[in-house]
This record gives sequence, structure tokens and C-alpha cells, in this order.
Amino acid sequence: MPEQEDVCSLRWNPAAGVVEIIDQTLLPYSLQWCELRSLESFRRAICDMQVRGAPLIGITAAFGLALAVARDPSDGSLRKARAELLATRPTAVDLAWALQSVEDALAGVPETGRPEMALREAQRLRADSIANCARIGDNGLELLLGLATGGRSLNVMTHCNAGWLATVRWGTALAPVYRAHARGIPVHVWVSETRPRNQGTSLTAWELARAGVPCTVVADSACGHLLQRGAVDCVLVGSDRVAANGDVCNKIGTYLKALAARAAGVPFYAAMPRSTVDPDCPGGMEIPIEERDPRELLVVTGCDAGGAACEVRLAEAGSRAANPAFDVTPAELVTALITEHGVSPASPEGVRRLMDR
Amino acid sequence: MPEQEDVCSLRWNPAAGVVEIIDQTLLPYSLQWCELRSLESFRRAICDMQVRGAPLIGITAAFGLALAVARDPSDGSLRKARAELLATRPTAVDLAWALQSVEDALAGVPETGRPEMALREAQRLRADSIANCARIGDNGLELLLGLATGGRSLNVMTHCNAGWLATVRWGTALAPVYRAHARGIPVHVWVSETRPRNQGTSLTAWELARAGVPCTVVADSACGHLLQRGAVDCVLVGSDRVAANGDVCNKIGTYLKALAARAAGVPFYAAMPRSTVDPDCPGGMEIPIEERDPRELLVVTGCDAGGAACEVRLAEAGSRAANPAFDVTPAELVTALITEHGVSPASPEGVRRLMDR
Repeated sequence: MPEQEDVCSLRWNPAAGVVEIIDQTLLPYSLQWCELRSLESFRRAICDMQVRGAPLIGITAAFGLALAVARDPSDGSLRKARAELLATRPTAVDLAWALQSVEDALAGVPETGRPEMALREAQRLRADSIANCARIGDNGLELLLGLATGGRSLNVMTHCNAGWLATVRWGTALAPVYRAHARGIPVHVWVSETRPRNQGTSLTAWELARAGVPCTVVADSACGHLLQRGAVDCVLVGSDRVAANGDVCNKIGTYLKALAARAAGVPFYAAMPRSTVDPDCPGGMEIPIEERDPRELLVVTGCDAGGAACEVRLAEAGSRAANPAFDVTPAELVTALITEHGVSPASPEGVRRLMDR
Repeated sequence: MPEQEDVCSLRWNPAAGVVEIIDQTLLPYSLQWCELRSLESFRRAICDMQVRGAPLIGITAAFGLALAVARDPSDGSLRKARAELLATRPTAVDLAWALQSVEDALAGVPETGRPEMALREAQRLRADSIANCARIGDNGLELLLGLATGGRSLNVMTHCNAGWLATVRWGTALAPVYRAHARGIPVHVWVSETRPRNQGTSLTAWELARAGVPCTVVADSACGHLLQRGAVDCVLVGSDRVAANGDVCNKIGTYLKALAARAAGVPFYAAMPRSTVDPDCPGGMEIPIEERDPRELLVVTGCDAGGAACEVRLAEAGSRAANPAFDVTPAELVTALITEHGVSPASPEGVRRLMDR
């Protein structure tokens, strides 16, 4: 992964007083930055998945709250902006956590001081996120180094996108991969296309190609076959929420990979900042699973022969579809959790110790 | 399912001396019959998946061989046509079985009698296929009737298309569903979209809608979640080849459903004509897995707003993809095999008895 400071998915532009994000709905065809200024623009960016990935959603929402406070620092404005941002997506807990961090920072601060304080907190969260992802990379690298491959490439299977596009920099699940690659360890990534929004094909393969990491896109359905045939050394995914018992909620399809990894005797790791852990959620079955628009499944967006964005319908008009966006992998299928605080067992005891660190 | 004689996927037109097939690559947007006459047209119809589904591939190949023999009944012509048709697709065993049936029927027949005999054999295979699928429906219905649902709809999950489009009529996995529906038993089908060619969305949902069976399309990745949450009463799939030990080879992604069904304690049935069983293949790991063009994964075909067929690219140019078309579900995950000869355990003993019937 390039080391330049400008390799990031979200940046604060102090001169213009706006947040700039990569519009991820346009990748991989077009790399376009867009400006977020109004509360509505932040809300839409999260709902429409111009930004996505639990950590990046959290940071985006924190800046959204800060800019709302800059416009109107009253308690009423703060409350309204917080509620609107919180309602954008239900599953990831980083969103609530980041909004709470900004609110906590404003406690006892008079209205006149709030704009600066809120913005400072959002910037702190962004910087912390980058540092945490770097540490996740280091901690995950230790695990990868333990998977002897006898000189051939290490084959990592991932799902959806948990790279720097899902965070601010480095990524969660991909951070150890980038670290390994930087160390000269040969690594190859199986990229699950991740229907219905194809984040594997459009984001993960794009990111890895930028960084020079060899990768191969496969159908989500192919992952069991690859694991069964010995083509995978470990599965490495991100998470949108980890419950107190170690259950891991992540992009729909993660659970199937965990089942197949277990059947194949291959380790299954989930990587996330500690802010993704929700100690108030006793188990994964309590996590609300977002149901997204069925249209995402029935209509595919890509680019036409001329390179322009284009939609095609796959189904008959009137077809019914269901589109749950996340699933829950039971803790017993998770070999370990990788956070900025090290590697933890996916168990009530492991999660408790992680939160106490 | 409509009972009219014209509900079928392949028919012989004696007046024109051609085979007519539904071009399945155009569904669900357009229902078009096309004529197959030359060996090359049969070969392309199978390779390009205008016809697909193990039973239908077999019948199509049998007619292809018969028409080649009609043109040139020599041994050389027979041998060449057989080899070309056999090479179209490597995984399904019905293809080899159907070609062998035609060749066996021609044994000892003088060249002058071959055209009529070959055509008669192809027509016999077609009629037998229809009768066998009807029996598979009856035998599978018994299993569905045993799954008490307390008055609510029976929820069947299927994968790819194993309906009448995959056979000549009735289908394999969908035959019991049609039988249940005809009996007034409320049944709902979870249709897995089946990437990369989307046969679930484009064929199975289309078929079920024609027959008035309620269904819901879901991402392949959603199937674990649905099983985990108790939304599925049984998984019912077809097969492209069953090994002597009971391992079931079927469309890529089937194995993941079997793993999730086992984890959820839900029965997993595979339905197929006995001709799909390959007693010469000791285990599923011996079955050649077709690797199809990676382009199928990176470019999606659908229809545009005007209803015209249209392609969109999902990935950056130069992206690498792998596209295995089938996987193997170990016998231990298969609750039972449903054939025209009844319900058999997926075990060496069960398969042996099935072949002896």
C-alpha cells in the first residue's frame, strides 16, 4: 500500500470547511472525491454507501455531527443531528460509538466552544482510527507469519471490503495483508465478490491492485469449494459489531465462510478496532440486521462499453427479493479476534479482557 | 405448473427435422425458441448454456448425435459427433450416459437403419426423462409432506435451476415443489440467485412465477443467515453427478448450503434421475470440476431500461477471476437422494442398492 499521506478514504479540508470522501459507489470505474458539508449530505453518504465499512461510517458520522454543531451549536441541533446520523444504518456499532464520543467531548462545553471542540474530537477519532488500523496490521501479521506455507504464497480469503476504503487508512482485515506484502512475504488474496453490492470486485480488488497485492475475484459461492480443496491458508474478515460473547456480525456471507473454514480446518480471523465490540450486546442474535432495498439484488450497476455507469435488470419485473445485509458468525467458529490491543479469543472471557485493556 | 403438453424446454419438430429449444440465455426477458440442426449448433447450445441442467444437456446431446447420424450414418461420423458433444461440458455425467445410450441402440444396426434408430432412441430418452421427473416429484413430495409446518407455508430453499428448464418437463428439485403446489399445500421457495450466471434469478424465479409458486430471490450469501434464523424447512437441490459413495456434485455454492443446513439441523435433499449417478466414480473428489470463463464473473448480462439485452462490467479491466462452476457436497451432509426409484441414503450401500433396482 502506498505510504503517501493522501492514501486515505476521508480527509478534512480546513480551508473549505468541508469533509472530502471518495465516492465509493463510483469505484472501480472512477475515483472521485466529493465534498460533504450539510447534515443531509453526510446522511445520504452513509445511507447510499458512498462511504461504508463500520470504522469509516463512524468517522464520517463524527464529522457530520461536528459540522452540524458548527452550524448550530444548540442542544436541540446536537440532538437532532445525532438522531439523524444514528438512524442511517442499524448494524454497525462504531456509528453509535463515534457519535457518543463527540457528544461526550461536548459535555459541559458552552455553545460558543462547541464547534471547535466537536471538530477537534472528530479529527482525533480519525487519527486514532489510522493508528489503530496500523496496530491491527501488526498484530494480524504475527498470525500470518505463523501460517507456514513452505515457500509458496500465503493464500488469504477475505469477504466484502475491510481495507483502507472501509476505514480511513490501512484497513482492518487487509491491514495484516498490506503489512505482509510490505515485508516481502508473498501473499495472494481470494476476493469474494460480495453480492449484492459487489464490494469485493469493485473495492477490494481495486485496493489490492493499487497496492500491488495479487488477488483473484471469485463468486461468493466458490468459497466453500476453495477451502475444501486446500486453496486457502486463512480467512480474514472485518466486522460491523462483535457481541459480548464473541459472536461476530459482518457482511452477509461471512457465516458461510466460517462454516467452510471450520470444515476445512482453516483458521478464521475477524479484525476490527475495539470500538466495534459492543459489550452491551450479549450475543449476536441480538444484533439488528439491516434489510436493504431488494433492488440492490435485482438490478446491477456497472459500466458499459463506453465506460459510463449503467444499470441492468437481472430479474423479471415484479420479482420479489430479500436483502439482509449482515449475518452473525457464532463465536465458536471464530479462531480469534484481532484488534489494536492484540489477539483475543472470541469468547465472553476474551471479550471482557479486551475491554479491560 | 401448467399441464399443457407444450410446457417443455426441448421438443422435436418432425416436419422440419429440427430440435427446438428455449434459448435460456435470453430468459427472463424474452422467451424465444431456437432451432438446432447442425452438430455445431448443438455443440454451441450446450457450451454457451442456451440449454443447461444435467438432464437437459443429456437429452440435447442425444438429439445432436441422432441428427449427426441422420446426416452421415458412418462409424466415423458417429465417433466424431460423439466426441465433440462429449467435450462440451465435463462435469455432468448424464451427457456421457445419454450419448452412450444412443450408441448402444445403434450397435449392430446397418448404416441405412441408423438415422431412424438414433432418433427413436433420443425420443425415448426424452420421454423417459419426463416420466422420471414426474416420479421424482412424487417421491420428493412424500418427504415434503413429512416436514410439518403447523399450517404455515413450507419453506424450501433451492440453488441454481433444477426445474423444468433444467430437464424437459417437471424438473428434479422443483418437481416435488410443483407437486406440493398442485395439491394445494402452501409452499414458498427461497431462490438463491446463483452467481455468476444468475440462474436462480433468471430461470428459477421465472419458472416458479409461471406456475404461481411464491418465491423470494436472495443472494447466495444470504442462505446461511436464513437457515440459521429458522426460515427454511428443507434444502432441495439437483445434481450434475453423484459418486458411488453418495457425494453430490452440483452448481458451485451447493456445498455451503449443505454446511449451513447441517448446522441448522435442516434436511438437505438432492434430487436427480438415476442416470446422474456415476457408479464408476468412487468419490466426489474424482469428479472433474469445470472452470468456466472468468468473464462470467466480471461482466453481467441483463436488460436495460428499454428491455434490450445489455452487458455491464463490474471490475476494473485486467482484474483476475476464477470461475469453478461446480462443487462437491460430501455424502455425510446429504440427508437423502431422491430419484425416480425412491428415496435413497447418500452412502455407498444406498447408491449400490439404487443402481441394482
